Amino acid sequence: MSFVLAIHGGAGTIRRSTMTPELEAAYHAGLRRALLAGHKVLAGGGSALDAVTEAVVALEDDALFNAGHGAVYTSAGKHELDAGIMDGSDLNAGAVVGILGPRSPIRAARAVLESEHVLLHGRGAEDFCRQAGLEFVPAAYFHTERRWQALQDELERRRQLAADTRDDADKHGTVGAVARDSHGNLAAATSTGGMTAKAPGRVGDPPVFGAGTWADNATCAISATGHGEWFIRHAVAHDIASRMKYLGESLTVASEKVVADLGVIGGSGGLVAVDHAGNVSLPFNSAGMYRGVIGVDGRALSAIYREELVA
Amino acid sequence: MSFVLAIHGGAGTIRRSTMTPELEAAYHAGLRRALLAGHKVLAGGGSALDAVTEAVVALEDDALFNAGHGAVYTSAGKHELDAGIMDGSDLNAGAVVGILGPRSPIRAARAVLESEHVLLHGRGAEDFCRQAGLEFVPAAYFHTERRWQALQDELERRRQLAADTRDDADKHGTVGAVARDSHGNLAAATSTGGMTAKAPGRVGDPPVFGAGTWADNATCAISATGHGEWFIRHAVAHDIASRMKYLGESLTVASEKVVADLGVIGGSGGLVAVDHAGNVSLPFNSAGMYRGVIGVDGRALSAIYREELVA
Repeated sequence: MSFVLAIHGGAGTIRRSTMTPELEAAYHAGLRRALLAGHKVLAGGGSALDAVTEAVVALEDDALFNAGHGAVYTSAGKHELDAGIMDGSDLNAGAVVGILGPRSPIRAARAVLESEHVLLHGRGAEDFCRQAGLEFVPAAYFHTERRWQALQDELERRRQLAADTRDDADKHGTVGAVARDSHGNLAAATSTGGMTAKAPGRVGDPPVFGAGTWADNATCAISATGHGEWFIRHAVAHDIASRMKYLGESLTVASEKVVADLGVIGGSGGLVAVDHAGNVSLPFNSAGMYRGVIGVDGRALSAIYREELVA
Repeated sequence: MSFVLAIHGGAGTIRRSTMTPELEAAYHAGLRRALLAGHKVLAGGGSALDAVTEAVVALEDDALFNAGHGAVYTSAGKHELDAGIMDGSDLNAGAVVGILGPRSPIRAARAVLESEHVLLHGRGAEDFCRQAGLEFVPAAYFHTERRWQALQDELERRRQLAADTRDDADKHGTVGAVARDSHGNLAAATSTGGMTAKAPGRVGDPPVFGAGTWADNATCAISATGHGEWFIRHAVAHDIASRMKYLGESLTVASEKVVADLGVIGGSGGLVAVDHAGNVSLPFNSAGMYRGVIGVDGRALSAIYREELVA
């Protein structure tokens, strides 16, 4: 039986002018670490749900990506993390909204999935995570100089009423993973710090099932990244699943169509998707998307710009 | 041009044994007040968005229904209110999660819709509402003896590990409205206190677009009520819209199919729906659903059990 895992680390302009060979190599290395973490689960006969969990944890632990350790700051200089995870075999789902404390927001979402709840927010979600025995870290764990500087730059830009020329991938990056395991089950997971200088309380699309995260063995598993408000208003992930289910479209046709249409009306971003047969689609309407794929052969393939995946 | 408004005030067992003629009359009166509030907007040429807002505000102000003033208590003896609203003409949407302070959660969601945000939770959402100039009330405004007693009964039941024999409509009621205005635009709004004795932080389906709330002129407007976790996991509202869009099913066929299927697997509840032509569907898989419809003639029709709507 075959299995496959696809991941993303955010989509956007990703300007080559601000990229150095060292930084580019670091992104590829980070993506591949996450791919290998998920592959280890799948190669051992593990579930898609466990594989997407471990892949996203690896991305959360990497300061380069906007989730977990590398999460961006709110306008109040705090961190508020969102994550969602869904099991395509039984449509079970779990998400956390606006939490700070658990080291891994995706493990927090996973704990919610395993409870009678689906969606928990704020302090109540944090208390739930404490009772579930999840690892907690001090707020300082989520401080990175790069994100702090990005917040200062953005606050200064707002004071000067200057145009917003930031890279989308920096502004509202997300990490996520989708997988099909050797048992034929699908799963999806998405985690994010949200948008740099977002209003306190603002929630993006990762915890909104059908928008940024969706998994159903009958169709596909999807994890999205981009301007979350647009993905929510267009129920992007569920729309792709519906086109497959009711129009009989392939994963590739449905996902490319929905992402392209979203781009036309201004919803910048992309997503990673896998179907029951193990087909993978990685559409994005921005200049680039940090992304990667790994299959049974264990070769970790990754890409950033509009280019072929490379080993 | 024609217009129509449909509302609900929760679905569930609604036992006749616990219902008195007086209480039944009070429910009908409450539903009709809300219908007339929305009708006033529509008859004046107002928008579906304004009509569903006013209808839901009327239900929130009524202690009989689980939203606003009559909201249920969390297990911690507090109130945490959720609401979502969506405009079918442009897919604009706004929702609040777990708020306490604004008198009307649906007006809070409406203010979010009119901002650059889509989803705000907790303290950040409350601060946003304060800046938006919404009316705030003290926490005591949300106290009703009936809901407080329901919390005590439920906590006692849990202490005794007794079976849960509560009426679903009391356990997880919701209020909502959908409308088609004389301009042909659709809108949907849903507001709730959640479930009696819910865990602090637990979020239901009203603020999850595509689950408990959805509106798109191309298909339909939907507001759901029931066990929210199931409505989220099955993207109930967006699934109905997708069946109409991609299978060409009518509003009635699509909505009755999805609600019946949900009931088979244990997802108790119902919903109100309207399409672009003004067709209305009010399916539920529970014994009853507090519901009502009003059209151009201004006759407020309502029902509780499996029975015809009556004037």
